[in-house]
Amino acid sequence: MKFNFKAIISILGLLLTLNGGFMLLCLPVSIYYQDEQWHSLLISGIVTLVVGLTGYILTKNQTSSGLKKRDGYLVVTLGWLCMSLFGTLPYQISGEIPGFSDAFFETVSGYTTTGASILNDIESVSKGVLMWRSLTQWIGGMGIIVLTVAILPLLGIGGMQLFVAEAPGVTPDKLKPRIADTAKRLWLIYLGLTLVETGLLKLGGMSFFDAINHSLTTMATGGFSTKQASIAYFTSPFIQYVIIIFMFLAGSNFTLTYFGLHGQLKKVWENEEFKYYAGFTIGIGLLVTLVVYTVTESTLEPAFRDAMFQLVSIITTTGFVSADYTSWAPVLTVIFFMLMFVGASAGSTAGGVKVVRHVILLKNSILELRRQIHPSAVLPVRLNKVAVSSDITFNVMAFMIIYFMIFALGSIIISALGYDFNTSVGAVATCLGNIGPGIGKVGPMDNFAFISSGGKWVLSFLMILGRLELFTVLILFTPYYWRKH
Amino acid sequence: MKFNFKAIISILGLLLTLNGGFMLLCLPVSIYYQDEQWHSLLISGIVTLVVGLTGYILTKNQTSSGLKKRDGYLVVTLGWLCMSLFGTLPYQISGEIPGFSDAFFETVSGYTTTGASILNDIESVSKGVLMWRSLTQWIGGMGIIVLTVAILPLLGIGGMQLFVAEAPGVTPDKLKPRIADTAKRLWLIYLGLTLVETGLLKLGGMSFFDAINHSLTTMATGGFSTKQASIAYFTSPFIQYVIIIFMFLAGSNFTLTYFGLHGQLKKVWENEEFKYYAGFTIGIGLLVTLVVYTVTESTLEPAFRDAMFQLVSIITTTGFVSADYTSWAPVLTVIFFMLMFVGASAGSTAGGVKVVRHVILLKNSILELRRQIHPSAVLPVRLNKVAVSSDITFNVMAFMIIYFMIFALGSIIISALGYDFNTSVGAVATCLGNIGPGIGKVGPMDNFAFISSGGKWVLSFLMILGRLELFTVLILFTPYYWRKH
Repeated sequence: MKFNFKAIISILGLLLTLNGGFMLLCLPVSIYYQDEQWHSLLISGIVTLVVGLTGYILTKNQTSSGLKKRDGYLVVTLGWLCMSLFGTLPYQISGEIPGFSDAFFETVSGYTTTGASILNDIESVSKGVLMWRSLTQWIGGMGIIVLTVAILPLLGIGGMQLFVAEAPGVTPDKLKPRIADTAKRLWLIYLGLTLVETGLLKLGGMSFFDAINHSLTTMATGGFSTKQASIAYFTSPFIQYVIIIFMFLAGSNFTLTYFGLHGQLKKVWENEEFKYYAGFTIGIGLLVTLVVYTVTESTLEPAFRDAMFQLVSIITTTGFVSADYTSWAPVLTVIFFMLMFVGASAGSTAGGVKVVRHVILLKNSILELRRQIHPSAVLPVRLNKVAVSSDITFNVMAFMIIYFMIFALGSIIISALGYDFNTSVGAVATCLGNIGPGIGKVGPMDNFAFISSGGKWVLSFLMILGRLELFTVLILFTPYYWRKH
Repeated sequence: MKFNFKAIISILGLLLTLNGGFMLLCLPVSIYYQDEQWHSLLISGIVTLVVGLTGYILTKNQTSSGLKKRDGYLVVTLGWLCMSLFGTLPYQISGEIPGFSDAFFETVSGYTTTGASILNDIESVSKGVLMWRSLTQWIGGMGIIVLTVAILPLLGIGGMQLFVAEAPGVTPDKLKPRIADTAKRLWLIYLGLTLVETGLLKLGGMSFFDAINHSLTTMATGGFSTKQASIAYFTSPFIQYVIIIFMFLAGSNFTLTYFGLHGQLKKVWENEEFKYYAGFTIGIGLLVTLVVYTVTESTLEPAFRDAMFQLVSIITTTGFVSADYTSWAPVLTVIFFMLMFVGASAGSTAGGVKVVRHVILLKNSILELRRQIHPSAVLPVRLNKVAVSSDITFNVMAFMIIYFMIFALGSIIISALGYDFNTSVGAVATCLGNIGPGIGKVGPMDNFAFISSGGKWVLSFLMILGRLELFTVLILFTPYYWRKH
């Protein structure tokens, strides 16, 4: 079996065409704010558009004709890589981020919706380029929804869409018969929520520019801010609560949000992942509130807001910061670090491990104890009242094990570059989980500028690995994948 | 089904009788060194002996008559607890460790062969009590061999003995038909190696007292030392190499050592866990040597010795220290921390996860990637050229997941008591893995004296949990176990 290169190039071409278009969308922003970078955006946009269109036209619209599973693995990783390469153009041409490693890191951090930044003075960056920076996250968020809900199930690629497809009531083909249609509806929700949040943030006192940028990066659970201090810059409780709510929504399964918006609330409440996601957020949120209230001198409401903001930001892998949690109490650093391994819902824009996997792992751990007492009993994990096949449980455990292996290996590599224990484990956990801020020297109030080029490349790789949920990328490194069939 | 309390009490009685006897063994040491603590040891020994004998005689030698699997779980945990309670007597009566939490922590750290200590001035402790301290580790090491090789397989309890029983060529009943006989042979090896090491250490210049104590705690992979500076006190390269070799032996499967001593070397080399254990030790050892050689100003031999000593000490979960690895380079702190999750061979005295589990996890991870490409192919993990049943692979993954869950929860609890990130994760990783020294404020040159009582109880629980490989203890916390059958 050979690769279907025509289809692969066609898809990559289409992706670049779309991205070129988005770059040109930043032109009016640049012109409006007279930041004198419109020419950089214009050149970047045209180059990307021309390269993309050439590939697309040369392969004569073969986007999905005869695309096989094996092509799918390649196209997903290449897609993210291609976008990240061309996405550096606005930074490079404008000179806002001169070094290529830096520009690549920032772009990967955008498309993977991580939000780790190398910018030391965000406010000095021209508005048009900042708009592009936020858009990379929004595109990345949109991309992951399309990928998990539409493309991967179509190709029969396991892992990512496992639960979205498995959970009864949220099966894409039950939602709407045609997958392209489903994707379109989810985009509309994504777009709609972005616009509503923009309106609310504007209402809360943000400038229109800040409002649209933060909405783009909230809905993508990305976390890029137009301010160096992130959301700590905006002290308005209204703004902070709006962002908490929209981060939570962005971390929810978009198919469930669709049902919710159509009044089918029963389907939302009955979904087990959502129950755990909501319950966990509230439970841990109250616990953290208690700690913050006890150790800081703040009153109850700000303690609750600070606790919930940081918690929801990390669980949803957004990475916005409204306060430095590492300065509160050591236990919160440990809790928030562990939460970097949680992630929000499958079928959302969030990265990381995902709540549904943890639910399966937790239930299976208890069942495994029971299996010791009754070795002959067949005790499958039950999710949404349905038995989960042992293959899926097996896969989820293997995923988690591989996740920890990569975390360990990544931490060793980063520390080998000379960074201390906390910085190394923090940087790797946050990049692999697509969050943004870590602990140690890459904590909530810091950035990744000081990391060496080598470190940035490793972390960029980890961001892509995490975003594509390990398997899709790792498979490309096995000999089995490249063997002729 | 009711518990067979008579048999349970009989076993606990036997255990205490043995332990009382061992306490009395310390009497001559105390008298010889005139440390004026012989009366404490005498009283402790008699109390333990009398309580033990009473229980044993009252139940009329029902040790294993009608002992069921369900009783087995209870007796294992209760056994370790009972021993740890009575084991505190010499510390308490002599006043060498006045606080009960401290004495319990030190005793649990002994019986679980962890080696974490609360003693701030070991050299000032009377010789007889120090002898007892080393003996608790030696007893614990002997206990775990008997448990994994003889008792648990007899009761059909899964988990711990899984690989010892499964690996072809090392099945206990192939080794010798009768299990009691097998256990006896392994004790003889254990005792023999302890005596040989004692001779070698004496030859290397240690006093007889230091030689016997360090041999007891080496073979148990325990790590208690008679010196506050641990093995760093003994600068002789010969002594350090002897300890490296015997730590490695103590971390090897004792059934394999039996084969090796009987000239059946082929069985040793063909055992996959041993191959990985030896290969990993040498591979990582050379890597660490390179780092130590590069970052410190030492010459090659001391760098190699320091690297190998610390590495073997952590992998085998012994916990001796001959140099402060946390001061060398940040990457070594990260590497050694990650190694705390490795552990040595199954069927050895080492604690932790065990190499064989990692071999299965590693092989299965690669196979899981292959399964993504060929979902219908049946691809079992192969160990020693035999397919491992998917139940075992499933169990190993669940074990690892639960291990990480307990690690995360334990770290949160310890940090909630006010300790920093590194200290918390270090203390929990090292106690759960039965190692001894951690990182942060419980690093190689520190001890656990400053941890609060609450923290010591939590860590004591984690040591027992780790020593009994999670399941055996955790099962007691499930409702299924206590339900009537």
